[in-house]
Amino acid sequence: METHRLNATQAVSAIRDGMLSAETLMRACLDRIAERDDAVKAWLHVDPARAIAAAREQDKRARNGQPCGPLHGLPFGVKDMIDTAVLPTTYNSPIYPDHRPAKDAACVATARASGAVLLGKTDTVEFAAFGRRAATCNPHNLAHTAGGSSSGSGAAVADFQVPFTFGTQTGGSLIRPASFNGTYALKPSWSSVSTEGAKLLSTSLDTVGWYGRAVSDLALVASAFALCAEDLEEALSMHSSLRRVRVGVCRTPQWGAIEPAGAQAFEAAAQRVRDAGATVVDITLAPVFDQMMAAHDTIIVGEGQSAFRHLQLSHAHLMHPEMARRFAPANLLPPTALREAYRHAALGRAALDALFDTVDVLLAPAAPGEAPRDLQSTGSATFNSIWTLLHVPCLAVPCTTGPQGLPVGVQLIGAEREDAKLLRVAAALAPFIDAERQ
Amino acid sequence: METHRLNATQAVSAIRDGMLSAETLMRACLDRIAERDDAVKAWLHVDPARAIAAAREQDKRARNGQPCGPLHGLPFGVKDMIDTAVLPTTYNSPIYPDHRPAKDAACVATARASGAVLLGKTDTVEFAAFGRRAATCNPHNLAHTAGGSSSGSGAAVADFQVPFTFGTQTGGSLIRPASFNGTYALKPSWSSVSTEGAKLLSTSLDTVGWYGRAVSDLALVASAFALCAEDLEEALSMHSSLRRVRVGVCRTPQWGAIEPAGAQAFEAAAQRVRDAGATVVDITLAPVFDQMMAAHDTIIVGEGQSAFRHLQLSHAHLMHPEMARRFAPANLLPPTALREAYRHAALGRAALDALFDTVDVLLAPAAPGEAPRDLQSTGSATFNSIWTLLHVPCLAVPCTTGPQGLPVGVQLIGAEREDAKLLRVAAALAPFIDAERQ
Repeated sequence: METHRLNATQAVSAIRDGMLSAETLMRACLDRIAERDDAVKAWLHVDPARAIAAAREQDKRARNGQPCGPLHGLPFGVKDMIDTAVLPTTYNSPIYPDHRPAKDAACVATARASGAVLLGKTDTVEFAAFGRRAATCNPHNLAHTAGGSSSGSGAAVADFQVPFTFGTQTGGSLIRPASFNGTYALKPSWSSVSTEGAKLLSTSLDTVGWYGRAVSDLALVASAFALCAEDLEEALSMHSSLRRVRVGVCRTPQWGAIEPAGAQAFEAAAQRVRDAGATVVDITLAPVFDQMMAAHDTIIVGEGQSAFRHLQLSHAHLMHPEMARRFAPANLLPPTALREAYRHAALGRAALDALFDTVDVLLAPAAPGEAPRDLQSTGSATFNSIWTLLHVPCLAVPCTTGPQGLPVGVQLIGAEREDAKLLRVAAALAPFIDAERQ
Repeated sequence: METHRLNATQAVSAIRDGMLSAETLMRACLDRIAERDDAVKAWLHVDPARAIAAAREQDKRARNGQPCGPLHGLPFGVKDMIDTAVLPTTYNSPIYPDHRPAKDAACVATARASGAVLLGKTDTVEFAAFGRRAATCNPHNLAHTAGGSSSGSGAAVADFQVPFTFGTQTGGSLIRPASFNGTYALKPSWSSVSTEGAKLLSTSLDTVGWYGRAVSDLALVASAFALCAEDLEEALSMHSSLRRVRVGVCRTPQWGAIEPAGAQAFEAAAQRVRDAGATVVDITLAPVFDQMMAAHDTIIVGEGQSAFRHLQLSHAHLMHPEMARRFAPANLLPPTALREAYRHAALGRAALDALFDTVDVLLAPAAPGEAPRDLQSTGSATFNSIWTLLHVPCLAVPCTTGPQGLPVGVQLIGAEREDAKLLRVAAALAPFIDAERQ
């Protein structure tokens, strides 16, 4: 296998076994980027010399017998709305063309302290919100969107340019690009990974997560954040048979927005999970969940108005008109609208938590269908917002190929803070759901 | 009145009327600090020359007829766990002795864009969490604590060193110091003021707020954050009589922790509110609220473990032993503990929101009693954590003087996002509650 195609789990194992150096892996990724970036445009900032020097440092640590972290030697990319001290952080906004934060965001610092090596910054929608789009194209068909707002992070991993990347999700910015690009992603439980140093959009919703090319990759990074055991075999082993795993098949109140390709992937996934031997039950969500989409949309606008108030006061002329309009002081939401949205969200969270007393994971669509043929669109988050609002961990798994030849995925969803359990169940189910490429 | 004693409302009005310049006010504050800082120790970083130059800039704006914001010319202090680009930001941690963020925190940027002038950084408990204490003493008796973790911010305003300051509350770090120091504070609704650039401790709980010496001061700053109307008279006018205001007197499930001085303040406040003509009803909280303190404590530890993971991995030796122990990877909470805490919090938020359909505000203790005579203590947050967890706005009002000659306050609490209503009711009630000093 070409070096740049090694997934995170394979690469970290090859490095640990002395079969591969961090420098060789970094150079392979940089070569792949050099070959592909004109087409895919996943990256905003790459500093090859610095990345190679940092990889060499990790090789030196290993040679000197110094302790090596669980991500030792792995190159990684960071969505450019997450702070890095050694590379620019622009949030894809003209307000911050030369911004250089004084410290790394917490997720970047955790990855580096765990041995990973920063490769570069990936393109994003302006402030990961509503403004300027990433230039990134879908690696499967350059005329189609890679999704957003974690556009570059999703495309770079899918295109074998880097083994893992960080992104963020406030609506559907991690899971939807995973589906569009045909790769894996974890949106962990809300607040289980520090958002410090990720540009704030909505405190209730913003979640840092990551892309990889296998469930084991997602678990590997999760172990660095103490979301599962560091021993991957232990972290991903099912202590009971798949037959005892109860999977709730959940079309969500947004099912009316599903496209044929999305429905096909979803039904295929449900069938494959059933064939794998899991106990599959149909779940119809209670009426309280019908309020979640509206609550999500109210909260993102209300909290966004607070988050961007200082920029509205000082730099409104440099904000994208769509951003400026949505968060305009003149369009402030009445307090009662937010109060009601929070009340609905609280009731929804309690109700979903109770639902997870009856199933282990939910299976739900990850996106309406294939990636739209429109680089100015990022697709719809209609199948993601509800889960983001409800704070539960979501894991994207590739499933089928649509009529346009583009990948379509599904997502598995766990109870709040049961990220480790979700990873275990996903590891057992993914070989069946993602059977076409195995 | 001596210039440094002008409260924020008086000062901003005197500047607007041309009776006072921003520079004169800044110099008066700096003189007061020079006189008092050896005793009170509220400040970690003050740069007088820069502060005076910035005040002059505001005076120049006014002379040139440029637009002036609602906080035009007001000096302000910032708790040193909130980022400032022109002054160091140490979080009172030896990990960051020379840290200089590349941009201001959102609250600082909003205040500056509204015309306020940064005076300096105030002392804080390490990371506003559990570590090294602020050196700050209570200005009413230097042998007593000023409270914490917003120690310097509370003391500086109470001691007439600056008209307003920013602080943060995760347990009771704004309201408790207000009570101990005899001043006013607003902890706004959670996420109604951006926490961007405030060191993250607990996403569910962290709230940026401020100190002032009158309800009108709190409203003035709130107007800069669009939490109430910019026209202060409009913002604080009651459109109906006090008789129609329903005040719920709430001893909270923690009443067993009240001290005689705290009980006296609380009963006095309830009587004064009754005498003022408000409709006063006794509120006994439903059993669901008995779970709030435990849920708060679980969430602060669980989210703190996520927030400080990167520092645990890279700088554990420089963390205070109390911090390191509480957030140690070895002491990770089981997911079920957090899951249960979040479920309780959700149920509590929905229940409290329904309670606010029957009352306009709650009256509750702000602290157990007077400030402890112990500079290594910051007092107990037992009367604050429940409201922080429940995301509702809290406003501290001074009330009585205890047997040791120290102030004791109470708090008024509004429904989530009803900050403007809380400010209006508090403006009407504060002259009665705080009658002894008027």
